[in-house]
Amino acid sequence: MPIKTALTSMLDLEYPLVLAPMGGVAGGRLAAAVSEAGGLGLVGGGYGEPAWLERELPLASRGTSRAWGVGFITWNVNQSVVEQALAHRPPVFMLSFGDPRPYVSTIKAAGCVLICQVQNVAHARAARDAGADLIVAQGTEAGGHGADRGTLPLVPAVTDAVAPTPTLAAGGIADGRGVAAALTLGAQGALLGTRFYAAVESLGHDAAKRRLTQAGGDDTRRTRVFDIARGHDWPAPYTGRAIRNRFLERWEGREHELAGATAERPVVQAALDRGDFDTAMVWAGEGVDLIAEVVSAGELVRRIGDETEACLRAAAALLES
Amino acid sequence: MPIKTALTSMLDLEYPLVLAPMGGVAGGRLAAAVSEAGGLGLVGGGYGEPAWLERELPLASRGTSRAWGVGFITWNVNQSVVEQALAHRPPVFMLSFGDPRPYVSTIKAAGCVLICQVQNVAHARAARDAGADLIVAQGTEAGGHGADRGTLPLVPAVTDAVAPTPTLAAGGIADGRGVAAALTLGAQGALLGTRFYAAVESLGHDAAKRRLTQAGGDDTRRTRVFDIARGHDWPAPYTGRAIRNRFLERWEGREHELAGATAERPVVQAALDRGDFDTAMVWAGEGVDLIAEVVSAGELVRRIGDETEACLRAAAALLES
Repeated sequence: MPIKTALTSMLDLEYPLVLAPMGGVAGGRLAAAVSEAGGLGLVGGGYGEPAWLERELPLASRGTSRAWGVGFITWNVNQSVVEQALAHRPPVFMLSFGDPRPYVSTIKAAGCVLICQVQNVAHARAARDAGADLIVAQGTEAGGHGADRGTLPLVPAVTDAVAPTPTLAAGGIADGRGVAAALTLGAQGALLGTRFYAAVESLGHDAAKRRLTQAGGDDTRRTRVFDIARGHDWPAPYTGRAIRNRFLERWEGREHELAGATAERPVVQAALDRGDFDTAMVWAGEGVDLIAEVVSAGELVRRIGDETEACLRAAAALLES
Repeated sequence: MPIKTALTSMLDLEYPLVLAPMGGVAGGRLAAAVSEAGGLGLVGGGYGEPAWLERELPLASRGTSRAWGVGFITWNVNQSVVEQALAHRPPVFMLSFGDPRPYVSTIKAAGCVLICQVQNVAHARAARDAGADLIVAQGTEAGGHGADRGTLPLVPAVTDAVAPTPTLAAGGIADGRGVAAALTLGAQGALLGTRFYAAVESLGHDAAKRRLTQAGGDDTRRTRVFDIARGHDWPAPYTGRAIRNRFLERWEGREHELAGATAERPVVQAALDRGDFDTAMVWAGEGVDLIAEVVSAGELVRRIGDETEACLRAAAALLES
């Protein structure tokens, strides 16, 4: 039985599940697989490298006949990158972090549904005022970049603040229990990142996927260490949540020193390339406790969709005497 | 219609709602009012002052004919305080932070239901092994003392780790949407603190309650500043979540300096006594966005219980075509 929400109606989805546009990890093949299975796949445009987009966006647009999209870190794109992505005619365009206003009219003129992801109530109101069609309330539990509010209280607060604009929940959601919770909190669907990082079709390294199946949420940390080590300058309060590893343990609390240690910069990138995750980061959300195996994205969408349905039924059954 | 869970069955409650035992704020009158309305009221024994307990515990035991209880910060009690509390025959005894094992046999011999509150998966397993009857998974969104895991992913992870021991959710829950989310995540009920701080019967200062109705979750911070200022030595990773105020802004990031500024110690306590919350702390969770007025505890229990029921029904209706 399908789950009906404002999200599924707007984009003709079977499940209120969205693949978070993880930069460099959510490629076109993963996005297409999620969309084909009845969710919404978003390609992770990340820092907006044109060559990467030219390779991945066609894999999504040709890989599914259903709605799909692309997502970017707003302050890392420019008009040219936005237009490059729009040329592939994504039905959905998502912007996270930073002010979406410079790109709203271009994106809307192309007929896209505009999703804006925010990390607090003040930014949610700004996204609503900017013209977002859907607003993602992203909690601190999320893998990769995010801020400091918790998903559970943030979702109803944002939902109240931007009503009647529909909201989605992100951060710490990796199974049907989390999706069902998002719906009871007032969201119209959920974004899942880390769970799909460990999908067969993701562009993540096999060794990174293996760590995701082994780590627990107690092992993740919000940190600036990996951004500093790569020379990426994210402003406060944004940090990245990753699985604790040797490199993080070495530098945590010594961020100022690391900022001066420019010799470390190629080290993390080289480790990433060769799959050495004692040094390179595996971005991961706190929902990683719930990830035990690498599965195909289509199987994940159906499994999590079915779990969501079962949770909603079980919740309703608590009312029966 | 009642909501049936392992918690409500165990203690014959009408709603799966528990008053968090906020030290010094959840007195006997508040606990009794929550229990009388069909929830579970827990007196906040906090740091275990005998005179306070002698005043407040009888107000709970005589104020309700239903289940009630008392909660302590484990590392601040001793055998004598535990026995003093047990003499008032609380049906429920809760321990938060620290190792519960020194007191488990005494508490169980008195016939109490033992609730242990934890902040991560490792401590949940330890509480299960120690003999807890119910385990509270407390997320970082909680007001007052807590740690760093988010409620939404922590609850299913803890529930899986300690099954079949039943779990409760705490942290960021202030209305029926949050309670319903707790239930879909697999918990058998929810603890609410901040929402009841702003109840008529709480021992909180009127000026503090007023701040709770005005602040938003974006205004709260996890901090060690107020503990340091009062000479309370909480170990890492525990911090207290409070509404940002002038004192916090002055000292945040200068904790080492504050630790040496012993002249500040009486300042916070004096401010607390006279209701000056530009200096004293108002502990508050991120759910404070959802608190708009000071209401009686009984009204809150019934209102949140009804909202929970409506949320569960609405969630189930998403499955209807």
